[in-house]
Amino acid sequence: MSNIIFDNERIDDLEFNGLKIIQSPSCFCFGIDAVLLSDFAKDIKKNSVVADLCSGNGIISILLSGKCEAKKFYAVEIQKKIADMATRSVVLNGLSDKIEVLNLDLNLLHKNFEAGSFNAIVCNPPYMKANSGLVNDCEEKIVARHEVLCSLEDVISISSKLLKNNGALYMVHRPDRLVDIISLLRTFNLEPKVLQFVQPFFNKAPNLLLIKAVKNGNSFLKMLKPLIVYNDDGSYSNDILKIYNKI
Amino acid sequence: MSNIIFDNERIDDLEFNGLKIIQSPSCFCFGIDAVLLSDFAKDIKKNSVVADLCSGNGIISILLSGKCEAKKFYAVEIQKKIADMATRSVVLNGLSDKIEVLNLDLNLLHKNFEAGSFNAIVCNPPYMKANSGLVNDCEEKIVARHEVLCSLEDVISISSKLLKNNGALYMVHRPDRLVDIISLLRTFNLEPKVLQFVQPFFNKAPNLLLIKAVKNGNSFLKMLKPLIVYNDDGSYSNDILKIYNKI
Repeated sequence: MSNIIFDNERIDDLEFNGLKIIQSPSCFCFGIDAVLLSDFAKDIKKNSVVADLCSGNGIISILLSGKCEAKKFYAVEIQKKIADMATRSVVLNGLSDKIEVLNLDLNLLHKNFEAGSFNAIVCNPPYMKANSGLVNDCEEKIVARHEVLCSLEDVISISSKLLKNNGALYMVHRPDRLVDIISLLRTFNLEPKVLQFVQPFFNKAPNLLLIKAVKNGNSFLKMLKPLIVYNDDGSYSNDILKIYNKI
Repeated sequence: MSNIIFDNERIDDLEFNGLKIIQSPSCFCFGIDAVLLSDFAKDIKKNSVVADLCSGNGIISILLSGKCEAKKFYAVEIQKKIADMATRSVVLNGLSDKIEVLNLDLNLLHKNFEAGSFNAIVCNPPYMKANSGLVNDCEEKIVARHEVLCSLEDVISISSKLLKNNGALYMVHRPDRLVDIISLLRTFNLEPKVLQFVQPFFNKAPNLLLIKAVKNGNSFLKMLKPLIVYNDDGSYSNDILKIYNKI
């Protein structure tokens, strides 16, 4: 077996089902948003075929493989260096039969998969518009955070093509994009069915949202109570400790 | 002066600026949603001309007249009996120069007002689709609660016509209609700019939302922290006590 980690990389213990992940602080580490999305999507049905778009180092597919009984995950990442880290993390966890990493542009996915190939899609996309916010990071971080190589519309339109009827898209994003998200989902026949906001503290406005949309679903939105990340003293809330399997 | 109240009606003290309101438990009493909307809309600018659609007994115009410096409110109510209660409440409060009650179908408002006549519109519309939920109430309650005589699309399309450029629509509604609300607002060039959810308790999902949309506004949504109505012991939260002017 070739080297499993390279310079500036490290192996982190996910403290969940014995899973581990290869990360590189200089170019890609997962955030709490990936952990929250993998928990939000754990109702993915048994034997599902799942696409994980903008998969980064594979964190969501790896965590989800321990949280649901999907048959197969395709983790799609456009950046070669990060897709390579993901592939090595999959090998490290002995998950090569369950997770396949594809170093592909998601806008070309319909050339690799027929329409309606997936039961579910998960996506932690870049949050910021191409020309907004700080862009003085390294290239990997810019691509992961800004809509340089894929826009919200790209994610939603390709998801609509690739999902089976009644298949579900699970996405994490920022509340300031809620209007774009909802408008685009409906435009592409993905009906928002479950929405949950994430607040850093009880007394603060939300800074993340989790949304589940169903292809050709009926129009009825269920809103969950907000997920609060930190207690007032800065310790993790019970909601988060449960997700991290600590209680 | 003719009778100010009739059978089955009562005068309630609003405990705010000495204002009072005529109500009828059998056909129309305002709810907390009207109080929350009038507070949410208090940033309406000085000298504004405001339409209050689906105004019921005039509660929102009456409260807002004490919370902002708008020049004139037109309270539009389709039900004659309730519009008549509103007119008498306006007289009772000595607000006849500031609030004019119009017993009109809002779908015909463009015949009475030119496009772009209003700086702001407030609306507490019927929440439920025409054929959903319990419809065994009296006629007044059915019309106030169900989209029998006006739909969400009616409210949003007429608001778009009647607002000036950069004028604002303030609405209270239910979270399960969020997707319809956002999609329709954008369709009619009313960009959602501020969104706040209202939770009955800290630990419960929201059951109301407050939204401000600006005609031809830029796309950026500010989400406020949720408004919590009750403390865990069932007493009103400080947020609500402030709105009710109790602290």
